[in-house]
Amino acid sequence: MDTRSPMAVRFEAFAKDLQSRICAALEKVDGSGQFRADAWERPGGGGGISRVLAEGTVFEKAGVNFSSVYGQLRPELAASMPGEGLDFFACGMSLVLHPKSPMIPTTHANFRVLQRGSALWFGGGADLTPYYPVREDAEHFHRVLKAACDRHDPAYYRRWKRWCDEYFYLPHRKETRGIGGLFFDYLQNDRERDFAFVSDAAESFLPAYLPIVDRRLRDAWGEPERQFQLLRRGRYVEFNLIFDRGTTFGLKTDGRTESILMSLPPLCRWEYDAQFPAGSREAGIVEWLKPTDWLGLGPDPLTEERP
Amino acid sequence: MDTRSPMAVRFEAFAKDLQSRICAALEKVDGSGQFRADAWERPGGGGGISRVLAEGTVFEKAGVNFSSVYGQLRPELAASMPGEGLDFFACGMSLVLHPKSPMIPTTHANFRVLQRGSALWFGGGADLTPYYPVREDAEHFHRVLKAACDRHDPAYYRRWKRWCDEYFYLPHRKETRGIGGLFFDYLQNDRERDFAFVSDAAESFLPAYLPIVDRRLRDAWGEPERQFQLLRRGRYVEFNLIFDRGTTFGLKTDGRTESILMSLPPLCRWEYDAQFPAGSREAGIVEWLKPTDWLGLGPDPLTEERP
Repeated sequence: MDTRSPMAVRFEAFAKDLQSRICAALEKVDGSGQFRADAWERPGGGGGISRVLAEGTVFEKAGVNFSSVYGQLRPELAASMPGEGLDFFACGMSLVLHPKSPMIPTTHANFRVLQRGSALWFGGGADLTPYYPVREDAEHFHRVLKAACDRHDPAYYRRWKRWCDEYFYLPHRKETRGIGGLFFDYLQNDRERDFAFVSDAAESFLPAYLPIVDRRLRDAWGEPERQFQLLRRGRYVEFNLIFDRGTTFGLKTDGRTESILMSLPPLCRWEYDAQFPAGSREAGIVEWLKPTDWLGLGPDPLTEERP
Repeated sequence: MDTRSPMAVRFEAFAKDLQSRICAALEKVDGSGQFRADAWERPGGGGGISRVLAEGTVFEKAGVNFSSVYGQLRPELAASMPGEGLDFFACGMSLVLHPKSPMIPTTHANFRVLQRGSALWFGGGADLTPYYPVREDAEHFHRVLKAACDRHDPAYYRRWKRWCDEYFYLPHRKETRGIGGLFFDYLQNDRERDFAFVSDAAESFLPAYLPIVDRRLRDAWGEPERQFQLLRRGRYVEFNLIFDRGTTFGLKTDGRTESILMSLPPLCRWEYDAQFPAGSREAGIVEWLKPTDWLGLGPDPLTEERP
């Protein structure tokens, strides 16, 4: 029996269509790369479509996943979730884009709905991980996401920008994964209003990211920049394999490994105690990798500032 | 006050000396690479010496760590450990060697002592991760380790070979990390006898590994083998960052990040759903990555076989 609420069904159609449109837009930007699509089924119920573009002109690896799964929650997992009973339904679209040029930032976005019993909630977000950060890019990315938030609730941007900074943090490196964005979860106010926001935020991903690709596409780079990119991609791997809840949860609960690990970079490296000359852009990246008020909003009037 | 037992002090001297001797032997085998040494201090007490050889002729990256730390255990951690009180002392030597040639296996070894209150126990092991496995190499590695075990207890080899197969397992890949070796922990029978065994096992590492390097050193390889090695190194990263207790424990408890992550390969890659032609050595590796009775010992007479 299909126990999905009408909203879950509606979001599923939206997410599937969004995957197609995003892939089409990325192929157009790339110019040569094409997405391959793998449809897969989940033994416990449901399935998905993994779409990957490898070795394109712009994108070294672009993975765009759609999944829609249902089944029975394990009780210990259910204990920490809204709703009642063990039946669940989860549907989402997620992507990670690894450009070839070190001058173009890596990006991640994810929009999803979960249903358990009578509870239904949305989660998601988008964030940017530059290797050679540019202030106007960070501002543009945040400005577009803020505009999407502001169309729905004036408190959203600050709240989810902060959650993003807190979530995408590598404690052992004492740095954020990138320059932030949005991260939200357990959004369950009014289903219509929530869907309006989530779909708006999701539609804002391409306008937030693609102009940055366009700006950086012709920036020159060589072997030193490439090597730095590979090193920084190692940090991306560290975050995803050690801390990212979606990744570790998926791997430990029999998810589809290849789809889960589509987020990992095509090539990366680790160098013991890598150091860069003082004053170099490489050494300077640490200044970018901490929570930053990109849009000059000042202290949040709606919440207490933390020390 | 130094609360270390005489055995802890003795093991520390052994481990430090072993680090030096192993580094000297590896430099000799490499021919061109040299270890750099970083002495570091742990804010909570103690410190260590990290030695790394990068971009040698034989070794693309070789990390050999010595650490000797003490302090106060967090109570939630102490709950799962032998002994009493919160004072602890931990000392060990660990190494991971990443050869440049895909024909030479990667290897890991680790020997350590822990003391908490009146309890003192040893742990450690050694294991081999080939990219192009050769039967005689797997047999040699296991044979040398078994001989070390057999000199101390006829039950040791089978028990710790099995524990190694169980520990170095990637459930999301349904494969072992490599072809196994030894893994043991909580060894606390008789301190003299235990030390005799652990030091014997530690001394056996080079005789177990170096003849394999020597045999494979002139085996031809090219770009396809290199790419396969990089892909398999990704699995090594997956194990170390997701499952390895030492790595995740160290990173989550403020250990020295650069020393902990010395185990990661210098360069690696991930490719979505990589496939290899049926019958190729690359496709065949999965046959090697499961618990295997390399020495033809048959069912263990001392323990029940599991289904």
